[in-house]
Amino acid sequence: MSFTACLSYLAIALHLANGGYVYKTEYLTVPVDHFSFTNKDTFRMKYLINDTFWEREKGPIFFYAGNEGAIEMFCENTGFMWEIAEEFRALVVFAEHRYYGVSMPYGNRSFDDISRVGYLTSQQALADYVDLITYLSHNGSYSNRELYQMGDIYDTVSGGTLAPSATNPVIAFGGSYGGMLAAWFRMKYPAIIEGAIASSAPIWQFTGMTPCNAFYRVTSSVYTDTSAECGLTILASWKAIDNVTKTVDGKAWLSQKWNLCSPLTNDDDVSTLKDWVSELYVNLAMINYPYPANFLTPLPGHPVKEVCKPMKNHKEDDFTLLGSVFKGLSVYFNYTGTSKCLDILTSSAPTLGEKGWSYQSCTEIVMPMCSNGIKDIFEKKPWNFEENARYCFETFGVQPSIYSVEKTYGGKNLNAASNIIFSNGLLDPWSSGGVLQDISKTVLAVVIPESAHHLDLRASNPKDPESVIKARKIYKNWIKKWIFHYQNHPTRGSNNSFVKQQIVLTI
Amino acid sequence: MSFTACLSYLAIALHLANGGYVYKTEYLTVPVDHFSFTNKDTFRMKYLINDTFWEREKGPIFFYAGNEGAIEMFCENTGFMWEIAEEFRALVVFAEHRYYGVSMPYGNRSFDDISRVGYLTSQQALADYVDLITYLSHNGSYSNRELYQMGDIYDTVSGGTLAPSATNPVIAFGGSYGGMLAAWFRMKYPAIIEGAIASSAPIWQFTGMTPCNAFYRVTSSVYTDTSAECGLTILASWKAIDNVTKTVDGKAWLSQKWNLCSPLTNDDDVSTLKDWVSELYVNLAMINYPYPANFLTPLPGHPVKEVCKPMKNHKEDDFTLLGSVFKGLSVYFNYTGTSKCLDILTSSAPTLGEKGWSYQSCTEIVMPMCSNGIKDIFEKKPWNFEENARYCFETFGVQPSIYSVEKTYGGKNLNAASNIIFSNGLLDPWSSGGVLQDISKTVLAVVIPESAHHLDLRASNPKDPESVIKARKIYKNWIKKWIFHYQNHPTRGSNNSFVKQQIVLTI
Repeated sequence: MSFTACLSYLAIALHLANGGYVYKTEYLTVPVDHFSFTNKDTFRMKYLINDTFWEREKGPIFFYAGNEGAIEMFCENTGFMWEIAEEFRALVVFAEHRYYGVSMPYGNRSFDDISRVGYLTSQQALADYVDLITYLSHNGSYSNRELYQMGDIYDTVSGGTLAPSATNPVIAFGGSYGGMLAAWFRMKYPAIIEGAIASSAPIWQFTGMTPCNAFYRVTSSVYTDTSAECGLTILASWKAIDNVTKTVDGKAWLSQKWNLCSPLTNDDDVSTLKDWVSELYVNLAMINYPYPANFLTPLPGHPVKEVCKPMKNHKEDDFTLLGSVFKGLSVYFNYTGTSKCLDILTSSAPTLGEKGWSYQSCTEIVMPMCSNGIKDIFEKKPWNFEENARYCFETFGVQPSIYSVEKTYGGKNLNAASNIIFSNGLLDPWSSGGVLQDISKTVLAVVIPESAHHLDLRASNPKDPESVIKARKIYKNWIKKWIFHYQNHPTRGSNNSFVKQQIVLTI
Repeated sequence: MSFTACLSYLAIALHLANGGYVYKTEYLTVPVDHFSFTNKDTFRMKYLINDTFWEREKGPIFFYAGNEGAIEMFCENTGFMWEIAEEFRALVVFAEHRYYGVSMPYGNRSFDDISRVGYLTSQQALADYVDLITYLSHNGSYSNRELYQMGDIYDTVSGGTLAPSATNPVIAFGGSYGGMLAAWFRMKYPAIIEGAIASSAPIWQFTGMTPCNAFYRVTSSVYTDTSAECGLTILASWKAIDNVTKTVDGKAWLSQKWNLCSPLTNDDDVSTLKDWVSELYVNLAMINYPYPANFLTPLPGHPVKEVCKPMKNHKEDDFTLLGSVFKGLSVYFNYTGTSKCLDILTSSAPTLGEKGWSYQSCTEIVMPMCSNGIKDIFEKKPWNFEENARYCFETFGVQPSIYSVEKTYGGKNLNAASNIIFSNGLLDPWSSGGVLQDISKTVLAVVIPESAHHLDLRASNPKDPESVIKARKIYKNWIKKWIFHYQNHPTRGSNNSFVKQQIVLTI
């Protein structure tokens, strides 16, 4: 247990006006496998916790359903939870997703083979979170393992009294995959989760639910809406790269011009470069926040606007155009001025847990994507399931389960769900797979025109668009409703009430 | 594939007025482990199916969630589904629960060790059923395995079109543990199950939710309500057995008088005898139907009344009293006149899958029970968790997970559930752990005063009490509502509708 100040470590993160978030770092031992009894291994799941404002008797638990990365990153970038904790007298918890950060079921060997990595699934992660909440809602007075084994304090008259029913309502929060988890958490465990704020959660970005070109169309619109010329320049750049790198000299020229860490030597390198740049455009659109921030990488405010600035004329000759594009790209990879060269072999989002996500993308989180260069600004790339499946089999020995998510969580049929807010920014590529229309009176879509990827969950900032400020108010009102309902619904706490009407023995 | 007439094989089963049910016996290959990727084994799950009346386009699927036994037994004893299938143009399906009947994941070795039996859980069984329904709702046009791997027919434009969304609403049925599964099925997979008829489902017969003595109190009331003297005689019989069997001669006398297959030789044998008789009283109360039936064993109508007939005077001397008790017991074990002796080493419910149930009772289905001989007619027996845990560890190498069911399925907090009918007969011991009050407008309790264990799911019979007839009408009305709602709700089939309001690219 250690106290750590979650100060965003880069000076540009000025938006943390309160001076950062203070929390304790804790660990809970949980089973590696929640769904069979064949594997008794356990591991330590990390979580960050702050009970400064918690009213232990009945105050809510604000629970961030950690996603694909070290949990500190989500803690730093989910200021909304921190800002409303005092008003709600809430416990604030950020749980780290298994197989990310330090929450490795098998330590350094967690990805060695399928017998170890095979327990990386969304359902296992949710079951971890169930254990954590069960533990926390009993004030940490006994450990999770003991919960299963406390024969010694077993009440022989009532058949036991230490059931995991809690008196503290739990509100789940999450952004992106974390938002999917928050929504699924409420769907699968509604007795444990009273409501969920699922921000930028593309729960429909799956086979048969969303056209594979939707994602790149939205991404493209972010650039073309910023500047039509910018979009057209990016579209032209792919061909320009091909033209220029046809020759050895051209490859050398581009390698030097773009300051690549490793020079381009063949066509595969050129493909790698284009993939890297495509991913960069996507990431830039995702984190196109109106103020300087450090989510995936440090960036200025309105980074897409910055990137687009030098891309003014798509009719430039190939060499000039690639020079303009590079000026734009530099905003992303070298904003802090510390990158010596552009390394296309490392991710443009280095803070995420790539290995885990690559595996999840090969098993249950299979999101078909394609582009065509007509309705989007990217090169034509059909969704190639077979190639994808081959890669997955070679890399992890698995076959993608493309219908796993729909079978498990219900796909488009969310009629039975309740108490979930799906928020999406229309500047966010991932809105393509999000819920953009209300499903029912309690499963709501909040569409935020000026928001990128889960901007709404970030700390408030003077530069926040009005629509984001309004969205946060909506969340607060619903959270209040959910908590009120939880604390006032007759079923809650009525254990054994049925005995009252049990037929009376005549003996 | 074989056609089999599900004719109840005993002549006494006269209630099958229609001459039995006709179905095909089929098998679906499903994964042994649905929740990790570490185990790629598969097995063949058996199911019984009849599509005579099915309107394939949009007719419902009536799905029996098989419980702890060979599926034919539930098929034979769930006439209600068969009787309403034509009116609803429904497909009728009975799925066999893994590790029961012939649906053995590892054949004869399924119970050999924890690496094999460890996949026997309710959640794994529900996931089997999801696969079966997904398969059936696609008209059996491709196998479940292919569903995961059909890269060749993958649509590169839409990102695939063969999602498991079905056009056929599925109604789950089940009695007892099968009723628990039906209810949990709707809770966990509401996109797949539109509604559930959960008959005699003791979903609250778990730690912390129901006093451990409730079960035996209700059982006792069945006897004392039939005849106060009967209850008092049973209560007196335990002491009488103890008194008589104190001596070697007494043991010999009782062994001969009760026609035991193996004579009593020590106190352990006497304990075994008393346990066997206790279980018999429970089973008798469960299947205390108003007409001859063959559920757990062949019995006359109103068997408790028959059993109680000779037990008229609890003040008889010990020997006379035990003679009277034996006359009563004979109704149960020897109704067909074929039993040569009373074998207390075999279960009094020989058609159930004892091994599997014993294991489930040692892992997630831990139901605390106790009796005290004051408010019930049984010997004093506290719930002994430690002894139970020791047995489970020695037998299966597992620790009981006493809170697993509550954590997984929500316990008393069912506020978010919908479209479930919990029916309970007040003559049924298991009503002690059932839902006897409405939870909400769509989670309803149907309490049937004159019904024993899931009598309501049986075929109609001229001797059915009015309350059972009325209950079945209520089910039919709700099933109609659920199907109507499914077929008319706007979300259904609105795939990709959100694209309509997607922002338009300006390029």
